[in-house]
Amino acid sequence: MASSTQVERVFNFSAGPAAMPLPVLQKIQADLLALPGVGSSILEISHRSPAFTEILKTAEHDLRQLMGVPDNYKVLFLQGGSRLQFSMIPMNLLRGSGKTAEYVVHGAWGKYALNEAVKEGDAKAIWDGGATNYDRLPAAGALHCSDAAAYVHITSNETIQGVQFDGAPAVGPAPLVCDFSSDFISRPVDVGRYGLIYACAQKNAGAAGVTVVILREDLLSRSQDSLPGYMNYKAHADAGSLYNTPCTFAIYTLGLIVQWLRDEVGGLEAMHQRNREKAKLLYDVIDASGGFYRPHAQVDSRSLMNVTFRLPDEELEKRFVAQAAERGLTDLKGHRSVGGIRASIYNAMPIEGVRELRDYMEEFHKLNG
Amino acid sequence: MASSTQVERVFNFSAGPAAMPLPVLQKIQADLLALPGVGSSILEISHRSPAFTEILKTAEHDLRQLMGVPDNYKVLFLQGGSRLQFSMIPMNLLRGSGKTAEYVVHGAWGKYALNEAVKEGDAKAIWDGGATNYDRLPAAGALHCSDAAAYVHITSNETIQGVQFDGAPAVGPAPLVCDFSSDFISRPVDVGRYGLIYACAQKNAGAAGVTVVILREDLLSRSQDSLPGYMNYKAHADAGSLYNTPCTFAIYTLGLIVQWLRDEVGGLEAMHQRNREKAKLLYDVIDASGGFYRPHAQVDSRSLMNVTFRLPDEELEKRFVAQAAERGLTDLKGHRSVGGIRASIYNAMPIEGVRELRDYMEEFHKLNG
Repeated sequence: MASSTQVERVFNFSAGPAAMPLPVLQKIQADLLALPGVGSSILEISHRSPAFTEILKTAEHDLRQLMGVPDNYKVLFLQGGSRLQFSMIPMNLLRGSGKTAEYVVHGAWGKYALNEAVKEGDAKAIWDGGATNYDRLPAAGALHCSDAAAYVHITSNETIQGVQFDGAPAVGPAPLVCDFSSDFISRPVDVGRYGLIYACAQKNAGAAGVTVVILREDLLSRSQDSLPGYMNYKAHADAGSLYNTPCTFAIYTLGLIVQWLRDEVGGLEAMHQRNREKAKLLYDVIDASGGFYRPHAQVDSRSLMNVTFRLPDEELEKRFVAQAAERGLTDLKGHRSVGGIRASIYNAMPIEGVRELRDYMEEFHKLNG
Repeated sequence: MASSTQVERVFNFSAGPAAMPLPVLQKIQADLLALPGVGSSILEISHRSPAFTEILKTAEHDLRQLMGVPDNYKVLFLQGGSRLQFSMIPMNLLRGSGKTAEYVVHGAWGKYALNEAVKEGDAKAIWDGGATNYDRLPAAGALHCSDAAAYVHITSNETIQGVQFDGAPAVGPAPLVCDFSSDFISRPVDVGRYGLIYACAQKNAGAAGVTVVILREDLLSRSQDSLPGYMNYKAHADAGSLYNTPCTFAIYTLGLIVQWLRDEVGGLEAMHQRNREKAKLLYDVIDASGGFYRPHAQVDSRSLMNVTFRLPDEELEKRFVAQAAERGLTDLKGHRSVGGIRASIYNAMPIEGVRELRDYMEEFHKLNG
C-alpha cells in the first residue's frame, strides 16, 4: 500500500476513472472548503465569477503551452464524454458536406464511434481489425484514405484492447480526427497534424465530467446553425467553453494535473519517458514468461497505457486478480471482450506501483507456472 | 463571514454553481484522498467498480425516497446540463410523433428551451410573458393546452427573473415536462403529475456536472433507435445511467446532499418551510422599503429561490453589490437582462446568511434612501 499522511491508498490500475497524482488530490483537499482569497469552494463559485474565469483561462493557457497547441486551434471544455463526441463530430464535420467520413477501426471505441457516424451521414470503415480481435494496428501502407473524405477518424489508443498508434498515421489531405481519450497528454503530440483532437479527462487528465476538444478553427465553418445548440462546436467556441455551465470542478482538476505535468514531471517528453519505462517493466515480464503470460496486442502495436494479457486459464486469471487486490494492487480485471488482465498505467500511476505489480507477476508465475 | 475550522467562508448568493452545505463539503474533504475501505479517491474509482455502484444505487434510492418518485419512473444521471435537455426532450418525445410540443414561456430559460425544440419538430409557445419582461406567471385559466400535444413544457422556477410556479399547473392529458433546474428538491413535488422532470445539480443538488432526469417509463417508447446514442433516454435507462462514464464526483456529491436533506434538514417539507422563511425575510424588507427596493416579480409569482429587485439607480445598485461583498455577502449582481440585484437563496444558504443580507439591506436603505 502507498501511504499518505493519514489514509491507506492502494495502487489502482483502473482503466478509468483512474489513479490521480497524490499531490493534486492533496491540493484539491486543502482548498475544498474555500479557494484561497475567494471564501467559497470551487464547487460553489459561478462559472462566470472572476475566480473561475481565472481558473478556466489558466487551464487553457497551460494546456496549450504543455501540448504546443498552435494559435489557429480552439480548445473547448465540454461534457458528455467521448460518446457525445462520437455524434458531435459527424454532426458538425460531416452533415451537409456531401462527403464521406472514413474510420480506421482498430478496437472497440473506434467501432462505437463509427456506429454513431453512420447515423449522421455517409461514413465507413476503411480498415477494421476485427478479424484478429483487434490485436494490431494497420500495417504500413494499409490505409487508403480518400483525399476528398470529410475527415479520417482514428483512435490513438484503444483502451480495451491495449493497442496504440505511435503518432499520427499519414492520411493525406483530409482532416485527421483523433480520439485521444486514453493517452491524452501522456506524450508529445504534433497537434498541427490533426484537424480535431478529443479526449475525456478521467484517464490521464483528472476527473470524469470534462471532455477536451481541440480543433482547427477553419473546421468551425462546417457547423450549421440548425444543429442542436449544445451539439454545435461553434456555439461552444464562440462562448469560450461557457455556452452553459461546464463541469467546473473537472476543469479545475484538469488545470492542476497540467501544472503537475509541467512542474513536477517536467513536461510531456519526460512523461513519455516515464510511461515507456513503466510499460517496459510489465512487457518484459510477459515476454520472459515463456507463454505463461500471453499478451493480447502484437508487439509493434502495444499500448503504453493499457497492458493487456491472458493467463493459461480463467481460474488462474481470477486468482491473479483477487490475490493482487489483497496486496493493494486493484482493478486488474480485463474487459470482457478481451478477457484476462488489463493493467492501466496512465500518467499518475507511479513507477513504484508498476514495480510492485511486476514483482507480483513474477511471484505469481513462479507459484502457479 | 461564516467561520469554519480553518478557513474564512463568505455567504455566497450566486445563482449557480451556488453555496453548498458546509457539512457536505467537510465530508467530501475528509474522504478526498481515499473513500473509507476503498483505498482510492472518489475521483479515481471506476464507474463500474463495486464502490461506485453502491454510491450510484444509494444516491438513486435516497433521491427516490426523498421525492417520493413512483416506481414507474426512471431516474437518470446525465451530463450536459439543461441545455442538452432542451434538445434531448424534443428529440426523444417529439420527433416522429406528428404532434406539436407546447411551451409555456415565463422567463429566459423557457425561451431557450423552445428555441431548441423548434429545431427538432413542431413546437410553439402557448403563453409568453415577454411583454412584461417576464415578471409573472400565466393567470389562472390562461393556459390552453391541446389534449393532443406531444407534451407541455414549463419551467418551474425562472432563475434570471425570479418567477416561480407554486406546483404543477393544470395542463390536461398531455405529458407535463418541467425544468426544475433552480428549485429541484427545494420543496415537495408530486412527481406523478409530471411526465418528465429535469434539473441540473449546481443550484440545489450539489456540483456542476450532473443533470437529473426523472421520466415516466411509458415515454421511453418514443425514443427512436436512430437518435444519436448519447441523446437517447432509452439508452441511458437501459444502462442504469452507465451508458458511458458519468460525472461520478457530482453523483457522489448529489448523494451527500440528499442525505443532508433527509438527516439534517428533515426532508422536503421542512426544507420548504426554511426556504419560505428565508425568502420572507427579504421580500418583507423590499415591501417595507417604500419603493426604494423595487421587486421584479409580481407578488403572486415570486420565487423562493431567486429574489430579484432594482434600486433607484444603477449607481446605487453598483455600490450595493460592492459594499455587500466587503462584508462577505457576495455574488448579488442581477442578470443583465433584468438588471439590479439577484439574491439566490437555495437550500444550502443558511438563514443566518439571509439575516445578514436583510440587515445589510435595511442599513443600506437608511444610508442611501
